[in-house]
Amino acid sequence: MNHDVVDTLISPEGRLDVLSKAEVAKLLDSSQGGLYKVFRNCALAVLNCGSSIDDGKELLERYSNFDVSIVQRERGIKLDIRGAPSIAFVDGKMIRGIHEHLFSVLRDILYVHFEVVDNPKFDLKRPEGITDAVFHILRNANQLQTQRNPNLVVCWGGHSISRIEYNYSKEVGYQLGLRELDICTGCGPGAMKGPMKGATIGHAKQRLAGGRYLGISEPGIIAAESPNPIVNDLVIMPDIEKRLEAFVRVGHGIVVFPGGAGTAEEILYILGILLHPDNAEMPFPLVFTGPATAREYFDHIDGFIGATLGEEAQRRYKIIIDDPDAVAREMQLGMKMVREFRKSRGDAYYFNWSLKIDQEFQRPFRPTHENMRNLSLHKNQEKHLLAAHLRRAFSGVVAGNVKEEGIRAIEQYGKFEIHGEAEIMAPMDALLASFVEHSRMKLPGKAYEPCYRIVA
Amino acid sequence: MNHDVVDTLISPEGRLDVLSKAEVAKLLDSSQGGLYKVFRNCALAVLNCGSSIDDGKELLERYSNFDVSIVQRERGIKLDIRGAPSIAFVDGKMIRGIHEHLFSVLRDILYVHFEVVDNPKFDLKRPEGITDAVFHILRNANQLQTQRNPNLVVCWGGHSISRIEYNYSKEVGYQLGLRELDICTGCGPGAMKGPMKGATIGHAKQRLAGGRYLGISEPGIIAAESPNPIVNDLVIMPDIEKRLEAFVRVGHGIVVFPGGAGTAEEILYILGILLHPDNAEMPFPLVFTGPATAREYFDHIDGFIGATLGEEAQRRYKIIIDDPDAVAREMQLGMKMVREFRKSRGDAYYFNWSLKIDQEFQRPFRPTHENMRNLSLHKNQEKHLLAAHLRRAFSGVVAGNVKEEGIRAIEQYGKFEIHGEAEIMAPMDALLASFVEHSRMKLPGKAYEPCYRIVA
Amino acid sequence: MNHDVVDTLISPEGRLDVLSKAEVAKLLDSSQGGLYKVFRNCALAVLNCGSSIDDGKELLERYSNFDVSIVQRERGIKLDIRGAPSIAFVDGKMIRGIHEHLFSVLRDILYVHFEVVDNPKFDLKRPEGITDAVFHILRNANQLQTQRNPNLVVCWGGHSISRIEYNYSKEVGYQLGLRELDICTGCGPGAMKGPMKGATIGHAKQRLAGGRYLGISEPGIIAAESPNPIVNDLVIMPDIEKRLEAFVRVGHGIVVFPGGAGTAEEILYILGILLHPDNAEMPFPLVFTGPATAREYFDHIDGFIGATLGEEAQRRYKIIIDDPDAVAREMQLGMKMVREFRKSRGDAYYFNWSLKIDQEFQRPFRPTHENMRNLSLHKNQEKHLLAAHLRRAFSGVVAGNVKEEGIRAIEQYGKFEIHGEAEIMAPMDALLASFVEHSRMKLPGKAYEPCYRIVA
Amino acid sequence: MNHDVVDTLISPEGRLDVLSKAEVAKLLDSSQGGLYKVFRNCALAVLNCGSSIDDGKELLERYSNFDVSIVQRERGIKLDIRGAPSIAFVDGKMIRGIHEHLFSVLRDILYVHFEVVDNPKFDLKRPEGITDAVFHILRNANQLQTQRNPNLVVCWGGHSISRIEYNYSKEVGYQLGLRELDICTGCGPGAMKGPMKGATIGHAKQRLAGGRYLGISEPGIIAAESPNPIVNDLVIMPDIEKRLEAFVRVGHGIVVFPGGAGTAEEILYILGILLHPDNAEMPFPLVFTGPATAREYFDHIDGFIGATLGEEAQRRYKIIIDDPDAVAREMQLGMKMVREFRKSRGDAYYFNWSLKIDQEFQRPFRPTHENMRNLSLHKNQEKHLLAAHLRRAFSGVVAGNVKEEGIRAIEQYGKFEIHGEAEIMAPMDALLASFVEHSRMKLPGKAYEPCYRIVA
Repeated sequence: MNHDVVDTLISPEGRLDVLSKAEVAKLLDSSQGGLYKVFRNCALAVLNCGSSIDDGKELLERYSNFDVSIVQRERGIKLDIRGAPSIAFVDGKMIRGIHEHLFSVLRDILYVHFEVVDNPKFDLKRPEGITDAVFHILRNANQLQTQRNPNLVVCWGGHSISRIEYNYSKEVGYQLGLRELDICTGCGPGAMKGPMKGATIGHAKQRLAGGRYLGISEPGIIAAESPNPIVNDLVIMPDIEKRLEAFVRVGHGIVVFPGGAGTAEEILYILGILLHPDNAEMPFPLVFTGPATAREYFDHIDGFIGATLGEEAQRRYKIIIDDPDAVAREMQLGMKMVREFRKSRGDAYYFNWSLKIDQEFQRPFRPTHENMRNLSLHKNQEKHLLAAHLRRAFSGVVAGNVKEEGIRAIEQYGKFEIHGEAEIMAPMDALLASFVEHSRMKLPGKAYEPCYRIVA
Repeated sequence: MNHDVVDTLISPEGRLDVLSKAEVAKLLDSSQGGLYKVFRNCALAVLNCGSSIDDGKELLERYSNFDVSIVQRERGIKLDIRGAPSIAFVDGKMIRGIHEHLFSVLRDILYVHFEVVDNPKFDLKRPEGITDAVFHILRNANQLQTQRNPNLVVCWGGHSISRIEYNYSKEVGYQLGLRELDICTGCGPGAMKGPMKGATIGHAKQRLAGGRYLGISEPGIIAAESPNPIVNDLVIMPDIEKRLEAFVRVGHGIVVFPGGAGTAEEILYILGILLHPDNAEMPFPLVFTGPATAREYFDHIDGFIGATLGEEAQRRYKIIIDDPDAVAREMQLGMKMVREFRKSRGDAYYFNWSLKIDQEFQRPFRPTHENMRNLSLHKNQEKHLLAAHLRRAFSGVVAGNVKEEGIRAIEQYGKFEIHGEAEIMAPMDALLASFVEHSRMKLPGKAYEPCYRIVA
Repeated sequence: MNHDVVDTLISPEGRLDVLSKAEVAKLLDSSQGGLYKVFRNCALAVLNCGSSIDDGKELLERYSNFDVSIVQRERGIKLDIRGAPSIAFVDGKMIRGIHEHLFSVLRDILYVHFEVVDNPKFDLKRPEGITDAVFHILRNANQLQTQRNPNLVVCWGGHSISRIEYNYSKEVGYQLGLRELDICTGCGPGAMKGPMKGATIGHAKQRLAGGRYLGISEPGIIAAESPNPIVNDLVIMPDIEKRLEAFVRVGHGIVVFPGGAGTAEEILYILGILLHPDNAEMPFPLVFTGPATAREYFDHIDGFIGATLGEEAQRRYKIIIDDPDAVAREMQLGMKMVREFRKSRGDAYYFNWSLKIDQEFQRPFRPTHENMRNLSLHKNQEKHLLAAHLRRAFSGVVAGNVKEEGIRAIEQYGKFEIHGEAEIMAPMDALLASFVEHSRMKLPGKAYEPCYRIVA
Repeated sequence: MNHDVVDTLISPEGRLDVLSKAEVAKLLDSSQGGLYKVFRNCALAVLNCGSSIDDGKELLERYSNFDVSIVQRERGIKLDIRGAPSIAFVDGKMIRGIHEHLFSVLRDILYVHFEVVDNPKFDLKRPEGITDAVFHILRNANQLQTQRNPNLVVCWGGHSISRIEYNYSKEVGYQLGLRELDICTGCGPGAMKGPMKGATIGHAKQRLAGGRYLGISEPGIIAAESPNPIVNDLVIMPDIEKRLEAFVRVGHGIVVFPGGAGTAEEILYILGILLHPDNAEMPFPLVFTGPATAREYFDHIDGFIGATLGEEAQRRYKIIIDDPDAVAREMQLGMKMVREFRKSRGDAYYFNWSLKIDQEFQRPFRPTHENMRNLSLHKNQEKHLLAAHLRRAFSGVVAGNVKEEGIRAIEQYGKFEIHGEAEIMAPMDALLASFVEHSRMKLPGKAYEPCYRIVA
């Protein structure tokens, strides 16, 4: 493992090269209200791309001397970087993709702070205010591009999948790229990197100079999932819910590769939105796919959805096993339907204003014992609200299994108590068990001991 | 005179094509706090370019049915324009330069309203806050371009000069253009149009695709000085003082052509700034020039400056009569000095942060009888403060002579009373008299009757 | 008059930067078969642009030390230029437009020599071979641009017209430019420069970055009509007939400004072609225009054409006096007809293969006594052949009046004897007389003495 | 296997869009002197890219109805293609990379025929004439790019290597791409495709929009090694010797991956050139590399070179096993040396005029019994001449083993008789045996029976 560090001075190239004195002061301010800490940590995460560390804390400790400051010059600002991981460099020169990412981080942190958080025109308490903020952050990052037809495929899936599944995701990306579709992921390795790599080759064969590899991250996750340098549009949203909203408003369809429990959560997120009655007519191509090794994973997911959310939910997606060409054709067909739908209504191609996102999906969920106890896991409610609760239950169970905060809470207060109908809890139990069985869940190396119990 | 009108629907081309729902609502809001009125009136002024009307009121009356609204489409916004002056069109198609100007107007009005006026991060009460606002408006308009060397020549002078002087300003522009210098003016005809036209030919001979013709206007003046379509960067500053500050912070030198009293005011503005002790070392090329017919005008100006602000002020400019080549060489030399100065100090090329502008020059001046009475026109003060008072005295005298509000005030309350030393008032009297004698001052067709009297 | 000279070393910018060793050797070869002399003389003519000399011999004598050689460097060739006229430089740096012209000259001289003259695939004896050579020279110069719609207006007319007529030609160019039409001329001053200057302003207002100002010259004329630096596509055809053919194959319409006898010859050239029966259906917009001062000139021309070639010929053009806007609208309308005609037949937009040019118009004419005696000036023949003979008669008379060779021949052998019908010779006599009367013909400052006599 | 066919009509995009009537006629001429046959067959090969057929004859038979013709339209030519292999299409639309290749084929076939073969300025009998032709073909294909620093790495090696060796070649390409080096190969699969694919990813991470993937082929080989669509500059040289000369004049260094006997031949070609005394000082980075599995292959090659051409030859290359990063660093270092060498001598970066290629390497070799008998395989001659003979011996042996013509000759006339010193023949025998042993040589599935015998 290479712990070498490099010092360097870099300039933006024609994008964010002009800052006011006040902006520079704020960025270098390491006091409570200042932006230095978040900027430094995100910058370090970006520079650590390609390394095998996926633990933010370990990263910060290893490069504790890392420092970044801003220098004003006659042609604009430069970044003065000290103690950067050498993995970001080739023969002492920073990889240009990473170089760009640093300035994307700077751009978004500044904008969120200066123009969004303190600006009275955004009412972040109301759903429209949140959506408006998502819109402005994406626009400021130049992600709302009016000249493009709908062609942005969001790819979700695990970041630690097998080599076979990774190669499969590359092959899907290649077939998407040959059809001139673009890729959006959450950054990071595995199913978030493979499709971009494949699409790069597909785009090269199609001479597509402007192929787009959009990565959407947020400060809390970027250290664990640092953006691959192929990402040529990086956006740092301020939190996890705005990041998810960005995916579904800016993407035109979603391909889900196999993953673990986190992937299941994402599936519940998109299904919960699509099940909202206001979205009933809206085309939204959604495909679950993987090589033969992933068949069982998706079978379990599908069974669980059928048992809890029903057929209506199952109709919103297709499962395609071991056929990258078919996946790409399906998405391309879906893009045409999205285009026709929006054209017929005068809806924007670049931002899905019409998608109804219930505020249950915009508000953060903290998996405390109390919050878990109050979940509403019964079928006597609208499907999209059940999906919201299921997603939370899922989120809590995962936290209790593998996240530091969750594990400690279980140790201290005992198992989560979940009130839920048997018809729902049994399939969930089975699903999680199957993840464990097939090593889809990172566990601290011991037998699976459920972290919850069902209260009748 | 062509009063024909045209209806049309136009799209932005890759610049301001994406608006949020809230922004569109605000622009179409014709109530008190809404932006509709200012947007409509600026848009009409832009469309009226090339017409001989230079009276905003007449313009609004003539095109009283003019209307502009915003339409959301799948590829972004469009402007739906009704009753536009046909002069903006060639065979029914809007001249593209004017088309661009409409979207520049939209961009600046939106930005000033949404991001500047209501945003608590700008403290518009303090000098730094004002400068920060000027900086942000220019940055948002993409006018702070870090890759350019200092090369922006601001051209000031009258808008109703003679054909000979107009042709001379074209010739100066041509020589500047041959040297790859760019032009910035306040928009409008006369000395503000000639240099751009000349520079266009100079740039064409030098194959300079990116020649820059920057026009800086503001809502109160744009109707009378609508931007020539050659202007390829148009910025609408929110008021006259920010407009003047924009000129001196973004321009790298100034050429003054002959004009009338307004031109004299501008000269006092820049000299007042350059005389501030903090600016003593700063290079700032400043040339007064015209054909032989303008010799007398500049002789009078020079005499007045010598008599009031002294030799120190006279050293800050050069007068060059009838030699466009020499003017261009002088500016080019000045650009080199500006570049070296800023490089040696790490100062930005694109925005002159270091120029000290006393708040006396940032604050608006209203020429009421009381304000005029309180002017401090004596030599027993710092030169740059005397220049500030002189500029105001001048501004008041001009208003009393030719501006509606000023004339009415004189009719009602009698002449302005000015307390001033004879050594200052006598030269000013002489200067104004010379303007009248040489038809440099638009007067309502009667003998010159001074609107002020000196109180010992 | 500035006889200063400048030495410099210049590089091509991305166009003709790679030469083989054999090509360089040939260009530097000043022996009989070498290309040095023609290259040097054309280069000197290009560098002398803007000077008032229009006499090639005087030019060569004044800059007798002028020298140009080719240097091979690691990034391609450079031109080493010694003793160049300082008029081509601004503050010691060559004007980039002129810089480009030097490499256009190099490109065409090389191509004509290496690929056309000695290449057996061109049979320059046959009409198709000549047209093929014209095609290849234009293609090599990148002038056959398939993505453009028909929009190239050829402007013909005198190079020493009055200031009023020059300003009028600028105004026509401006109106053409506003309609996004491009300009092609024969290079040189007067009616060949004005339209380009005007179009530059029109194109700037329309934000037309790729406005095309095509100059077509040839080695024998370039010294007297050196290309204005606005010309951004310069082609050097090998001789005068191929130059004329290039105009009518690559242009989509022609505007004729007033001139002298040379302009009348050009009018006979295009009419002779359009009168060929094969061209009867082909749209070819042709306008004669000038300010009020030019009315008489075109009246005489029109009368002469009516009397000799008849109404059919008169139907091929329009005369528009003092209305630039109408000229531009007429040409724009004509462009649409050209486009429709070619589209309906699958004819190329970029090269008018279908235009029949009789070989009478492709072959050079030397105005000897014998050739003049053998002209066939009677109405008992097809109109297009009569036009060919008229053009030659005209050419001979002009030569006898003003060209060195012609004048000497007259001195030696007496007046040209022309066999022609009275109905033709009388109008010709009258036309030439009107040119003399209105100073449209450069004469060696003495009373007009006809150089021909009619033999019954 | 997909034998489906597609009909389509395609346009060039801004490159070769204008043809003269004579050129079109020649291309469609299927008689003896016409170009139709070679154009059709090359076009078919290009369209068959990615298929597993590597036998030209089989290809032609399978797509016997394939036809391509040229259509003239108002915006230039189009290709009308019938019966094309469906593998070139994605959902019915031709892959754009392949689309481009078709027009490259057209461009080179036309140019070679019209401008080279019949043009008396090329004396193809003399070495300088051949080099001049290579220069002109490359220049016409826009491959002599003066603005690039030396950065073109030629990759040689087998087209049917193992998956491990293929992945290794990708990894080397990736490391080269990260260092902004470009790739040139002979087209086709295996070691000619892997490096381009890897470099594409490296270039994407470095945001290198203009990455260059140059393929150099010739009509006789293109059917068996059709260009991968990543190739974005394709050149068709007229024969195998000019193709080899193009590699070494336009490339700045060579990486050799493992292959079979053909690869050994290529190694002897470049070593023979580098051993010429005139090239002694010239830097030319040359690396043999592969994963661990290739160690033995290169050990044998190295041993053979040491035994025959000696240490001097061995000093011209480096063998690097299983270290892509080191290969890339070595080539980058070499590029710097090439640059310095050429800069110091004013040699072109884009074409290595100074490299001496003995005519022994420019002339084709036909492996007949007589030619084989007359080889001069002894050490009593200059090393570079021995290398030339060795290359031929090798070429003959390979032909006798695997090429149709060679095998038939052996059947008819018996084994080749080679006069050679034992010190040379023994190592050659061993080398070929090792190829057989490690399956590096395609053999018709039977025990290796030497096709030559040594005559003392």
